[in-house]
Amino acid sequence: MKNLVLLLFFVGLNTFAQAQEAIHKEKIQAIYQQALTQGKAYRWLDHLSNNIGGRLSGSLNAERAVQWGKDELSNLSLDRVFLQPVMVPKWVRGTFEYASIITGPGRSMNVPVCSLGGSIATPSAGLLAQVVEVKDFEELEALGAEKVKGKFVFYNRAMPAGLINTFEAYSKSVDQRSRGAAVAARLGAVGVIVRSMNLRLDNYPHTGAMNYGDLPNKLRIPAAAISTNGAQLLSSMLSLNKNLDFYLKQDCKNFPDVPSHNVVGEIKGSEFPNQIIVVGGHLDSWDLGDGAHDDGAGIVQSMEVLRLFKTLNYKPKRTIRVVLYMNEENGLRGGNAYAKFAKSNKENHIFALESDAGGFSPRGFIFEASKAQFNQILSWKTYFEPYLASNFQLGGSGADIGPLRNGKTVLSGLRPDSQRYFDYHHAANDIFDAINKRELELGAAAMASLVYLVDQYGF
Amino acid sequence: MKNLVLLLFFVGLNTFAQAQEAIHKEKIQAIYQQALTQGKAYRWLDHLSNNIGGRLSGSLNAERAVQWGKDELSNLSLDRVFLQPVMVPKWVRGTFEYASIITGPGRSMNVPVCSLGGSIATPSAGLLAQVVEVKDFEELEALGAEKVKGKFVFYNRAMPAGLINTFEAYSKSVDQRSRGAAVAARLGAVGVIVRSMNLRLDNYPHTGAMNYGDLPNKLRIPAAAISTNGAQLLSSMLSLNKNLDFYLKQDCKNFPDVPSHNVVGEIKGSEFPNQIIVVGGHLDSWDLGDGAHDDGAGIVQSMEVLRLFKTLNYKPKRTIRVVLYMNEENGLRGGNAYAKFAKSNKENHIFALESDAGGFSPRGFIFEASKAQFNQILSWKTYFEPYLASNFQLGGSGADIGPLRNGKTVLSGLRPDSQRYFDYHHAANDIFDAINKRELELGAAAMASLVYLVDQYGF
Repeated sequence: MKNLVLLLFFVGLNTFAQAQEAIHKEKIQAIYQQALTQGKAYRWLDHLSNNIGGRLSGSLNAERAVQWGKDELSNLSLDRVFLQPVMVPKWVRGTFEYASIITGPGRSMNVPVCSLGGSIATPSAGLLAQVVEVKDFEELEALGAEKVKGKFVFYNRAMPAGLINTFEAYSKSVDQRSRGAAVAARLGAVGVIVRSMNLRLDNYPHTGAMNYGDLPNKLRIPAAAISTNGAQLLSSMLSLNKNLDFYLKQDCKNFPDVPSHNVVGEIKGSEFPNQIIVVGGHLDSWDLGDGAHDDGAGIVQSMEVLRLFKTLNYKPKRTIRVVLYMNEENGLRGGNAYAKFAKSNKENHIFALESDAGGFSPRGFIFEASKAQFNQILSWKTYFEPYLASNFQLGGSGADIGPLRNGKTVLSGLRPDSQRYFDYHHAANDIFDAINKRELELGAAAMASLVYLVDQYGF
Repeated sequence: MKNLVLLLFFVGLNTFAQAQEAIHKEKIQAIYQQALTQGKAYRWLDHLSNNIGGRLSGSLNAERAVQWGKDELSNLSLDRVFLQPVMVPKWVRGTFEYASIITGPGRSMNVPVCSLGGSIATPSAGLLAQVVEVKDFEELEALGAEKVKGKFVFYNRAMPAGLINTFEAYSKSVDQRSRGAAVAARLGAVGVIVRSMNLRLDNYPHTGAMNYGDLPNKLRIPAAAISTNGAQLLSSMLSLNKNLDFYLKQDCKNFPDVPSHNVVGEIKGSEFPNQIIVVGGHLDSWDLGDGAHDDGAGIVQSMEVLRLFKTLNYKPKRTIRVVLYMNEENGLRGGNAYAKFAKSNKENHIFALESDAGGFSPRGFIFEASKAQFNQILSWKTYFEPYLASNFQLGGSGADIGPLRNGKTVLSGLRPDSQRYFDYHHAANDIFDAINKRELELGAAAMASLVYLVDQYGF
């Protein structure tokens, strides 16, 4: 008799679990169906990319994007939409950037360059100097001030093509761009030319943030990126004539900080309104392209998560919040401000999800979580297998949600296929045309599915 | 004592298995490293796409591709390179294809169309007729001959966007293209216009094979594809005026069969030379683009498998053969001829791998295998996990290797991400520019790794 009760109990449990599982499967299928057949992410991104365009922090376009984000979220009939004020850096590219390799009197070749974000200008007549090519700081330091003084330092270490994850290849190369000028300046260099962070050989220079650290103003030197083809050419010309001259002219400029905003929208939780789940991307972008992949995609995917819930009439148990962060690219002021705001309001964030790795076919998610939390997440893998988005790993999640890290909140990043990302990243070809509608939509659907499961179970 | 021996035996086994596993991991890593940093697939595809171009069976370009394939394989110092003669169909697009929607006197709009492969021409003055739009054969049959006679049938069933695997969506739609003319002709239609097999809205008409089945010559009617934007426009205009006229003019033509070839190269196995592992793609393509994805990618990836083995100085135990099949697109004559050749030579094929799903980021492989064989394959999954190519499923493998199906030979297809494939498939934009070098190379490396494991263990 006791066994029979136990049996019925377990059968009941099993049936309940199976029923739950069937409900989740159905809900996730509905999310994908809606995203792929009636999705709004692609149309939103078309507008953000083509009607607004590049939106560097502190620019008029960034403010137009803030207004657009607020308006579109308001159209979703969320429970609350508001702006969070944040002061952001303002750096302006200026009206020209120009470089050439000069191999002799009257013999020069233009090469595609762009100023690195945060760099100072050259003198108005430009800079003319010889070039010393290095692979890394070690090689540069070994050369010493004597061989560097008065010259351009040309950092030409390619992203390692043998790595499968291109973000890993990026992290192994980006020090040239971010710290290259500061290191070279201390050795007396007059400027730096940095090989673009791009695995492909092409003619697009890729910008991105650099900073001078604590280098005094008077020691600062201009920094520019050169396209990968340009880098190959310069290196090849240097091997023929190490005394050739390089000419660089750029008139970018740093201004004092200006006010801007994060855009926030939320659906209030029906059971646990104080448990907050946040999903977001960054609204600012670099200025060369229109920032469709970085990070227009993350913005519209995050907005789509809330739109999907509203459209499918899903009433979350927990509060679901979308945040369009300002200033990820050159300051992270928005991410920091959001975390500060959350802390000062004593908010309980149980989960933060970021999409900032391009609008490509999703492969899965990366998590910052405790062992117990990650085990719970792994139990959801099967829901994502039919959608080929079940690659779940532990690792660094995302820049904008980083300031929420507290050892309790689970942080996560969407992980799309990374192969094409650095073809476009921070370059003039990061435009709406480089977006595949279905890949973008699949990312939004995967994110909504994960947020749904977190909302169902909590942590 | 006996237990100790047993223990040592098992420890030995374990150590041996671990050592084997370490060797395989290292070999696979070397394969990926070589493919991604020194690979030849991309350069080969550049040549095949840009210096040869579209290569429809029976065309001069197809013969140039055969010669190129033979030459390049010969350059790899394989043990044997040879051509297999095969007669192929010859259909020629002709010099023009043109269509317009005519809504009134002097009011017409051009729409992008292309002849379907195998179609007959229109009369030289073109065809002018009203249009009846249908979603499927059922709807058409329900209309009956009375409402169809003398008109164009416009098949306008979109590929279902809600499916994750776009090949599945394709298989649910392609009957309109392949059999649409034969079905409509029997009801007295004068021609058929078929919505392109494309999940995107754009202006590219997509060609592809159609056939008239056993329809007598005198009943045959011309068939053309219309771009998805064109289909939307035509449908929308029909909803305003169901009596509008459609004008189609095309001068494609079928010719008698002509001789062509499969190209075959092989490395002789060192231990089991009579066990053959074959890897391949199809050398022919449609004629609108240059067939970079369909199936230039599969060709160069298959060639790269053997080049990788040679370059890495790997001496296979079993015979590894690459086959560049002719005429997959409109006849499958090459695949059939290869299987016939294998049978008549009493060859023992243990494994056949095909790449014919585009040069996109690989997600895994599909297999036709017995339960025992598939279990063995599943034990290799972990080798592919670091490369995000470990999605192993049972299912239909590939057209060209289909004729080798005998219940013993394991058949397999590379499965790249499918989201973008039908953006390019059979259309003028299937060109080299649509190829990402790393994605192509990752596919080749995944294929070489699988072939390596099959060579190591057999079935």
